[in-house]
Parts: sequence; C-alpha cells; structure tokens
Amino acid sequence: MRLGVLTGGGDCPGLNAAIRAIAHRAWMFGDQLYGFREGWAGLLGDGNASLLGQEEIAGILHLGGTILGSSRTNPARSESEMRQVEENLRRRDIDGLVTIGGDDTLSVSARLSARGFAVVGVPKTIDNDVPHTDYCIGFDTATDIVGEALDRLHTTAESHRRVMVVEVMGRDAGWLAMVGGVGGGADLIIIPEERSTLDGVVHHVQHRMESRQFSIVVVAEGAQVEGIESTTSSSVDQFGHALLATRGIGTRLAEAIESRLGVEARVTVLGHVQRGGSPSMFDRVLATRMGATAVDYLHEGRVGVMTAIQGLEIVPVAFADVTGHNRTVDRRFFRLVEQFNTVEESAASHSHHT
Amino acid sequence: MRLGVLTGGGDCPGLNAAIRAIAHRAWMFGDQLYGFREGWAGLLGDGNASLLGQEEIAGILHLGGTILGSSRTNPARSESEMRQVEENLRRRDIDGLVTIGGDDTLSVSARLSARGFAVVGVPKTIDNDVPHTDYCIGFDTATDIVGEALDRLHTTAESHRRVMVVEVMGRDAGWLAMVGGVGGGADLIIIPEERSTLDGVVHHVQHRMESRQFSIVVVAEGAQVEGIESTTSSSVDQFGHALLATRGIGTRLAEAIESRLGVEARVTVLGHVQRGGSPSMFDRVLATRMGATAVDYLHEGRVGVMTAIQGLEIVPVAFADVTGHNRTVDRRFFRLVEQFNTVEESAASHSHHT
Amino acid sequence: MRLGVLTGGGDCPGLNAAIRAIAHRAWMFGDQLYGFREGWAGLLGDGNASLLGQEEIAGILHLGGTILGSSRTNPARSESEMRQVEENLRRRDIDGLVTIGGDDTLSVSARLSARGFAVVGVPKTIDNDVPHTDYCIGFDTATDIVGEALDRLHTTAESHRRVMVVEVMGRDAGWLAMVGGVGGGADLIIIPEERSTLDGVVHHVQHRMESRQFSIVVVAEGAQVEGIESTTSSSVDQFGHALLATRGIGTRLAEAIESRLGVEARVTVLGHVQRGGSPSMFDRVLATRMGATAVDYLHEGRVGVMTAIQGLEIVPVAFADVTGHNRTVDRRFFRLVEQFNTVEESAASHSHHT
Amino acid sequence: MRLGVLTGGGDCPGLNAAIRAIAHRAWMFGDQLYGFREGWAGLLGDGNASLLGQEEIAGILHLGGTILGSSRTNPARSESEMRQVEENLRRRDIDGLVTIGGDDTLSVSARLSARGFAVVGVPKTIDNDVPHTDYCIGFDTATDIVGEALDRLHTTAESHRRVMVVEVMGRDAGWLAMVGGVGGGADLIIIPEERSTLDGVVHHVQHRMESRQFSIVVVAEGAQVEGIESTTSSSVDQFGHALLATRGIGTRLAEAIESRLGVEARVTVLGHVQRGGSPSMFDRVLATRMGATAVDYLHEGRVGVMTAIQGLEIVPVAFADVTGHNRTVDRRFFRLVEQFNTVEESAASHSHHT
Repeated sequence: MRLGVLTGGGDCPGLNAAIRAIAHRAWMFGDQLYGFREGWAGLLGDGNASLLGQEEIAGILHLGGTILGSSRTNPARSESEMRQVEENLRRRDIDGLVTIGGDDTLSVSARLSARGFAVVGVPKTIDNDVPHTDYCIGFDTATDIVGEALDRLHTTAESHRRVMVVEVMGRDAGWLAMVGGVGGGADLIIIPEERSTLDGVVHHVQHRMESRQFSIVVVAEGAQVEGIESTTSSSVDQFGHALLATRGIGTRLAEAIESRLGVEARVTVLGHVQRGGSPSMFDRVLATRMGATAVDYLHEGRVGVMTAIQGLEIVPVAFADVTGHNRTVDRRFFRLVEQFNTVEESAASHSHHT
Repeated sequence: MRLGVLTGGGDCPGLNAAIRAIAHRAWMFGDQLYGFREGWAGLLGDGNASLLGQEEIAGILHLGGTILGSSRTNPARSESEMRQVEENLRRRDIDGLVTIGGDDTLSVSARLSARGFAVVGVPKTIDNDVPHTDYCIGFDTATDIVGEALDRLHTTAESHRRVMVVEVMGRDAGWLAMVGGVGGGADLIIIPEERSTLDGVVHHVQHRMESRQFSIVVVAEGAQVEGIESTTSSSVDQFGHALLATRGIGTRLAEAIESRLGVEARVTVLGHVQRGGSPSMFDRVLATRMGATAVDYLHEGRVGVMTAIQGLEIVPVAFADVTGHNRTVDRRFFRLVEQFNTVEESAASHSHHT
Repeated sequence: MRLGVLTGGGDCPGLNAAIRAIAHRAWMFGDQLYGFREGWAGLLGDGNASLLGQEEIAGILHLGGTILGSSRTNPARSESEMRQVEENLRRRDIDGLVTIGGDDTLSVSARLSARGFAVVGVPKTIDNDVPHTDYCIGFDTATDIVGEALDRLHTTAESHRRVMVVEVMGRDAGWLAMVGGVGGGADLIIIPEERSTLDGVVHHVQHRMESRQFSIVVVAEGAQVEGIESTTSSSVDQFGHALLATRGIGTRLAEAIESRLGVEARVTVLGHVQRGGSPSMFDRVLATRMGATAVDYLHEGRVGVMTAIQGLEIVPVAFADVTGHNRTVDRRFFRLVEQFNTVEESAASHSHHT
Repeated sequence: MRLGVLTGGGDCPGLNAAIRAIAHRAWMFGDQLYGFREGWAGLLGDGNASLLGQEEIAGILHLGGTILGSSRTNPARSESEMRQVEENLRRRDIDGLVTIGGDDTLSVSARLSARGFAVVGVPKTIDNDVPHTDYCIGFDTATDIVGEALDRLHTTAESHRRVMVVEVMGRDAGWLAMVGGVGGGADLIIIPEERSTLDGVVHHVQHRMESRQFSIVVVAEGAQVEGIESTTSSSVDQFGHALLATRGIGTRLAEAIESRLGVEARVTVLGHVQRGGSPSMFDRVLATRMGATAVDYLHEGRVGVMTAIQGLEIVPVAFADVTGHNRTVDRRFFRLVEQFNTVEESAASHSHHT
C-alpha cells in the first residue's frame, strides 16, 4: 500500500514517536509512507509531501515537536479545499491516511472519511478532551510539566508565605489542571466544568493561609470565576490573543486575592512550555502502540475510526462518536479533590488535638 | 473510626502520596489514623505504631520511599504471628486497616480479612503484575527511570557502535522491561513470559549491527535465555543474592554476545535506582485516588477488597481474585514489539531503495 | 561557640544544603547552632529562633526553599532595628553569625560587622551579580530551569514556525539570561548591560525567520529596548508589581515583533519557577563547601567577610569589596554570543554553497 | 581557512555543543569546516571526513554523544600512523585542527603539534582529571547523573535500613565520586587518591547505621581498599573488562560489609549511564565557549594549546603543561568531606542532648 501521515493542530510531545511507529509498521508490511508537511496545509494547493525513509525516522522517538511540521489549517471549512485534499491524495495514489491530531484534525478526517477515503485518526492533545479514549498523546507529559512547576513553586510559596496562582492550558476542559494540580499538590483547582466564585476562592485561600501559611491555586485558562470580569474586548490586541494570554484569568485572580486578603499573591502563566520537551515513557508507548495499530487498521480495512486506549487495550472508535463534543472532567473525580481541599484545614485543627 | 495504615514489601515511588491521601480522607471523616511501622513488623510483638498528624503528612507528596518504613516480614506463614497482628489491632481499637503493598502484602491482607478484620488493600509494585488493575503504584515512575537510562545509553551506543545490554527488574513479569524498553527505544526486549534463545538474540543483534551499527537490548532479570546457563548455586553467596545480582542474565548475555559476534558489548544493571526517587504525576494521582478511595471503602463497608484502576475508574476487586497469581505481559502487546524489531532491518534496507 | 544562621531575601535552590553544612560543621566543633526564622525578621522584636538539631537537618540536602523561612526585612534602614538585632544576638549569647543572602543581606551583614559583631556571609542569588565570586548559590540551578524551558519551546517554535520570546529574571544583571540563553540555544539574548533597539531586534528576527523559520529570543526582565516604551506608572497596580510582572518587557517585545513583522510571536514569562525546585549538584556542592567554610572562618576569626568561589577554591572576600555594587556580565562573553547569532544567517547561506 | 574537527575517546554530554560552536564560529570567519569521523580513525588510511553544513549542525546543542562518532584509536603509538594523519590533513588542505578529547586525544594533539601542525585541543572527560582547567566538558552532567542516582537510592536505603554501595567511574581520579557523592549526600566517599582500609570503612558504616539506620557509600571504580583483594586475572574475561566491570570494587565492598556487619548491603554499578544523555546548561555553555575560542585561537595563531577554564575565563594552556599527568582531587577538599562524615554520628548524639 501507499500510505500517508500528517500531524495537525498544536504540537505536543509524542508526535514523533507516533510517526516513527507508523513508519516502522508500514515498512513491515512493505508499504511506502508519505509524510505531508504542516498538517492539512500539506494537502492543499500542489501539496507538500515526501517519501519517508530510515534517515528521517532514526533517532526521533525521544524528540518533542513533529518532524512533519504542523498548522491549524482546516480545509473542512471549504468544499474547494476538501477537493484539493482529495486531489492531492489521488495524485500520489495514497491508499490510506493516518492523521494525528485533536478535535479539528479528527473533524476533517471524519469529513474526508465520509467522502469515501480511507482514514484512521490518532488522538493527541494536552487537553485530553477527546471522547472515548482514556488518554490522548501528549497529555501525560504535560501533566509532568505542570506538576514539576508546582513542585518548584511550593518551596518559594512556603519560604515566603505566599499565594501562588498558576494558570495552565485548557480552554474547555480541566483535565490538565486537575491531574497536574493533584499531582503537584495544589490546594485549590479551578476548571471550566465547575462553577467557581471569587468569594469561594477567597474563603478557601484565607483558611489555607491561616492553617498552612501558603497556598497553591491552579486555574485552567478557560475557567470562569464569578466576581471576576471576563477579559473585555478592549484588552485584546489586534491579533486577538497576546493581551488575553498575559492578562488571563490567572493574573486577574491573583490581583483579586491580593486585593481582598492583603497577602502577597503571585501568578505564573505556564504557557507554551506545557506542550514542549521530550515525551514521558507513558506517552512514547501510547504513541507507539496507537501509531502501529493505525497502520494495522488500514490493512484490515477498519477505516473511519480513531485509535483509542481503554484500559490497557487499543480499540477503534468511529469518528462519528468522537467529533463534535469534548470530554469534560468527571464530576466525581473533581469532587474527590474538592473535599480533599476543604479538609486540609480541619485536618490541621484536628492534628492539634492529637 | 480509628483506622490504621502500613506499607509492606519493597519500597517504590508514590507510597507517601498514598499515605497522605489516606490521612486527609480519614481526617475529612473525623477519623483517627495510626501508622504502623516497617510493614507487618509493626503489628508483631508489642507493635510499633503512632497516631499520624498534619506534621508527619505535610510536604511528603513528592517524596520517594515511605515515611512509615517497610519490611518483607510476612506473618501469614505462622498462625501465632497472625494472632499477634490481630491482638495489636484490637489493643488499639483499630476499626479498619489500609495495607499498601504487592503480592505478599495483599496475601496477608486476604488472610486477615478472612479472619473477619476490615482490610482494604492498595496495590503497589514496579513489577505491575497484580491482576485486575491496569496499573500499580510505582510502575509508571520506574518506566521513566528505565527509559531515561536507555536514552542515555543510546548516545554512547551510537557514538561507539556498541551493543548495550540493560538488565531491569522483573522476576516473573516483563512489564517494566516491555514498557520501559519500548519507551526507551530498545531494539530487543527479553521477558520471562516468552521463550528466548541465544541463537535468536545473536541473530537479531547481528542484523541490527549491520543496519544501524548499534543495538540496545533490554532483559528482565527473571528472563531465561536458552543457550545461557542459569546461575548455578555455586555462584550464589552466603546471603543468596549478591552474586546473583551482579552476575545475572544481563552480564552473561553481554558476554555471550561479545564472544559470539566479536563486537563490543556492555552491560548495565539498573538495580535499586529503579525503585527510588520522586514519583511521576501519574503515580501521584493514582496513589492519591487509590488512597482516598480505600478510606471510602472502609466507611462503606466494602472490605476484603483491593482498590484497582480500570480505565479511568477506581473500582474494588475482591482479594480472592488477585492473590495467588501474577498478571503477565499480554502476548499481543509483546508481539507488536517483536514485529517492530524484526522490521527495523528491512526498513533500513527498504529505505535504501526509496 | 554558640552560632547563629539565617537566610535572607528571595529563596533559591541550595539554601538548605548550606544550612545543613553549617550545622554539621558547627557540631563537629562542638558548637551549638541557632536558626533565626524569616531572615532578619527573626532578629527583630523578641526574636524568633530555635536551637537546630539532627531532626531538622536530616534529609534537607536536596530540598529547595529554606527550612528557616526568609523575608525581605532590612534592619539596616533604621538604627533602632539594628539595635534590636544586636540585642537579640546578645541575649542568646551568639558568638558568630552566618548570613546566607544576596545584596541586601550582605549589606546588613556589613553594617552589623562594622558594629563589632562576628559575621560571615554566604552569597546566594539566581542573579549571580555579587562581585568577586564566580558563582552564587542558586544560579546554576536557575540556568538549568531556563535552559530546559528553552529546550521545550524549541520544539513548538520549530513545529509552528514561530517567534518565542522568553522573559527571565534579572533586574540589573543579565547572567541568567546569558547563561540560560546560550545553554538553551537562544538566537538572541537581550540583557540590561547592553544597549538594544527594537529596530535591531526586528532586523535580527527577520533574518533568522528567513534562514531557519523560527526564533527564540531571551530577554532579562530589567533590559531596556529602545523603541519600546517603559512600563508607565499607570500600569502598575497598588502593590507596584503585579502588572509590571505580566506586562513586562517580554510581552511588549513579543507584541512589537508581531506587529512589525506580521509573524506569530508568543511570550513566556518564566516567573517564580526559576527560583524553585531541587538544587543541581553544582549548587549543592557549592553550598556545602561555602557553608562549612563559613563556620571555619568564624573559628579562625576571619570575620567581616563573605565566602567566595574563585576557580575551584573557596576564599574570603571582605564585605567592603562586595557591597554597594553589582557584578555585570562581562562584555567579552556577551560579544561572543552576539557574533554567534549574527553568524547563523551567514552560516545558513554559506551551507547552501557547500 | 580550512579547518577540521574530531572527537576522540569515550563520548560524553557536550561534545555536540562544542562541535556546533566550532562550526558557527568558523562560518563567521568564512572558514570551511571538515568533520573527521570516529576520532583519529578518521585520519588514518584514506581518511573519513566530510564538509559540515547547517544541516548537520542544526538542533544538536542538547543532544548527548557526538555526531562525528568517536573511537579510542591512538595513532601516537606508531610513526607510520602519525604520517597517515599528516597525509590526510595535507591532502584536504586543512590549515588547523580542533581536537576534542581527554588524555589520549590531547597527547596525540601534542605530538601532531610538535610536528608543526596547527592544533588546538578542547578538554572533555567525565573524570575531570585534565590539569590546569577547572572543568572538562561532560563532568558537570555526569555529577548530576551520579547525584540523582544517590537521591533515588536514599529513599530505598532509608525505607529498608540498608547500606547502599554505589560504584562510579574514575580509574585514577576521584572527582566524579567526590562531587557526585557530596552532592548526592553520600556519608562515605572512597577515591583512588586516598588510602582506605576495610576496617575503616566497616567502622564508619557501623557508626552510621547506629545513628541513622542507613548508609550511602560511594566508591570510585579505581579505588583500592586495603583488606579487599584486587580483582585477580582469573576473573577477567577474554576481553579483559566484562568481569572486572561487574565484579569491581563496589560489589566486593558490599559483600565485605554485609559479611562483616551482618546488615543488608546492596551495590549499584552506575556504568555507562554516567556518560550519556543531554548535557547540563553548565556543560553546554562551557562547550560553546571552549569551541568558539578554539577557532579564535587558530585564527590568532595561538596553537599547540588547549582551551581551559579558570574561574570565569577561557585561557590557553600549552599542551606540554597538560599531557602526561592527571589532576587528582585536592586533599583539602577531600578532608572537608571526611570530617563531615565523621561528624554525623557525634551530631546525632549531640542533638539528643539539646
């Protein structure tokens, strides 16, 4: 067979591990593998692709980013672009395509699949919000980065008796905030899925400062906190993001806490470091298994599906079941943490009695 | 309630995260929590325990090892010792016990449970061989350590065109070798679950050296390779382990490869570094969820069970279903890698044609 | 002797390693050691100190922060506070004091020394700007953190063809930007010591984008770039820092680059993660040697000095020689890098010819 | 000019950073740079070299190993091979050569220089035993690896009350054992430079186990301990190293401690992981500065020298002053640690009184 592969959307650790596995598996079958450059952009116009060989694939397992490049180009918005995609695949006699990406990439893949082309998707996103898969490529590494940053901030917070507010990625889903925050020992985690109020946050931080003298608050960038005004259009720059990124919910929350409680509060906006660096072993193995299985699916004719991990198994999930909605954080998981935090103060007072 | 907690068997990263979660959850319920020292040894003789307070629990989330100490003491071998355990629990009015451990600890827990005491187990082992749970505490961190060691050996192997044999932990199960090996880019992985022959290994290494000029072989300490004699009793010292550890399968395999192929082969025995250090975020979150849930189970009367993770859920599994047998590596997972390796050479030769 | 120790100013990795070494060395001499809490604040009012024992010191070598706490309290600004400091030292019969800190702490130490009290200083600051010592405690670890962040941003910058602006700590000196930036492969480094213009920066980034398609710019928070207005007072909040921190030179520079070149530019403000976490071995050994030597100096009567490292030797430097001025980055070191960067483009064009 | 570069001897982190700096600096001057493959082997026979371009150099700053390959080939042992080296340099019109290596490589460089060829050496070795330079490339990273391994072993040693013996690299010099050991909190460090006896070691470990219940002993592979027989020839295999490596001083010392004290002792032989992986920022900056300066020296006609770092300065040192002898660990540095260790027990007993 002649296969193709592309990586779409924001980059994250583990993309190269997936590409490598796809290549090795394809070669095992005697297939040829074309790499399309810069996501879907590599399938527009005259196309931008090249045959992949051992040279490109050697030594990339541990590297972050993607050797194929990526972009947020989304051809599904235009019929003419979808036709260019098909045309480019046909011109190179591509029998099957593996697309590695998140929401957007999977949506385009579903559209392409509906038009009769053989596509298998591989989910990656540090937001971990793709339905029906326990994990997406890149998420585990991102939680390590968030957790390590919290470890570092702990020592400063404790030495200086401060409130540290840490803003992490996550527009619609709080997975990264939740798992990174629990792992890094945050005492309050604010996510888009759950209602939060400034009064509630201030109340928590005040108790925490009384019992432990420092506080680590993690907030997902997409979370809303009642009592803190949303970023108005006037503070958005001409590109629509720079000011948002640097005057986001984290900054405004830290200012509000400082103003209400009169304690020192500092904000750290983790930003793009969350999607960089060498993948964790978990992500490398996940990417390797998903990549190899995607090629198997193409050979078995199981197309129009995404590789998913459920427990220890890689299974196929139909595109129809994964596109169009995000998977949010499970309420029970969240509530566990909520009670956890509430308890710290009573624990402290309790321990005085013992 | 008055609860107790102990950690048994070999230490690993994440034990302190579990202890911390158990304490916070217990305090949330208004419980008192006793920590028994040095595993089951803390329940023998007059017992060795103390009430845990905020002081002991603060700041331990990220620390390896266990603040309670551990030991391989196994009272299940003697009726009189089991009675001492019960006596010590009764004397302190303990209503429920959380035991954090592997095989052995869970077996004792099952025995104690069968005698009518309320016990909930929490699985930990870098071998990851406890049935019915996708992951045990400590495993994910150990795979990171193995994978990072392989990353480091890659650069030396490639610069000097060598064969590197890496011996990792795993007497009966090859999980750590498999996941650490795939993550670290080993080109051959030898585990106890699958038959290996020296001829097969030599054949693989020879092909690999021809195509890529270096080779990374991972072998689990408990793997058998036909054609390499087992360690005879004469090379075991008076303590029964020192010589075994340092003249294990890895060393003998490296010597055999060197002797058969006349290439430079080096062995690295990772040893105890595999069970040390700060836990990964995955392990911290797993330990936190399992620890908190174990306390919930005691309050709900769901006893005689182990907390297990299946997919994203924590669920109870009866002791009867987990003791007495190990979970081995899934054959399909292994076969995926086997084909992977076999393919590298053909890939290399293939890429010359493209 | 009865000795005292305190940590002043911002915390950083290695403080605990120094405290541990001071304690062990003091105990070797048979001394008693008092720990004053929260920097100089522990010597004001009634004082806040306790005798240190093995319990407090065990297991802290690898921990960030300071077990003694710290503050920016500076008694040198008031004669009455200096008298309180002396009074508190006298009341506890302290024969000699080791002060671990930067600029401010060393200045107070010099004042106290001038009044006849036996003080030895130990330099720590991630700014590395204390004169006459090659390195200050905490600097090496901070360069690792900066460099690792750049490593992570590289993969994203390269995959998405972006300009990444990274703002690092350093109000008056560019050591951290320079060493972290060179280590992390920045192609442009902007420091307070050298004149920069927006035109120059834009020119560099444009060339770099043409030759390599991505650019990593490191800027010290205290750097001035001509053509970019300084933060005006109106954008400073009531606490005088929050807005400054989040609308600092990095953010404004990224916006200017984006606006002038029409390329995607992103800013990352590393913030407090730069001063947290476990110290590097270099910092642990430096802190251990400086701490132990400070105690030796007190016993030898070499007081009114700071421990300094010059080459591989720890030597005493009089307070008079280190207070009142910062050590800036050596021009030659900077120029080396400047040429380095300028060259990348010609290198790229050159390599096309070869 | 037409320049050449090679890397000789064992690989270590930072070699690629040096190669990259040499290339960029050479290109800045408008030079061409040839890379000789596999150390001096690339200058024997017909030679093995290629012109380096941007493609080879991009993205290697953070990679361990060496893109040029390395070998232990030493042409200085034969007049005919030295002539081949000169012949190969002449045939390619090489005007100046940068050699990156340790003892052996620098000796050959000195020989070549004495024959009138323009050579500048750059010192690298994780042993750090080259005279007149504070640091060699690779050493700092190796100390991090040793120290991190000790951090990991601490938790196991403490949880199980064990003696952990860690064997690190260092045949003639104890720098790595000393700096890694002090950084990682070893309580006893045994190096080749200082006389050790089994009685002394056992005495120390016994005291330590009584006061702290665990002990971490670091021993350099080349250290001699009186009372422990040297490895006899019969336990060396046909290649002269495999058995030595796995039955080295660490293993024999652990066995002796176990046998004499009846406590559990475990050995970890760190092996080749010590020379692998991504370089620390310290090593990257050192390598970058030394590499760039080596090219400057060639242009200034300062040849027959090695780049050395003394304090913060890079300076030239004549080959005659660095070849033929190793730099051993400074006695004073060692004695500081020795007293340190001796003191821990008295500290423990002391703290009971306070």
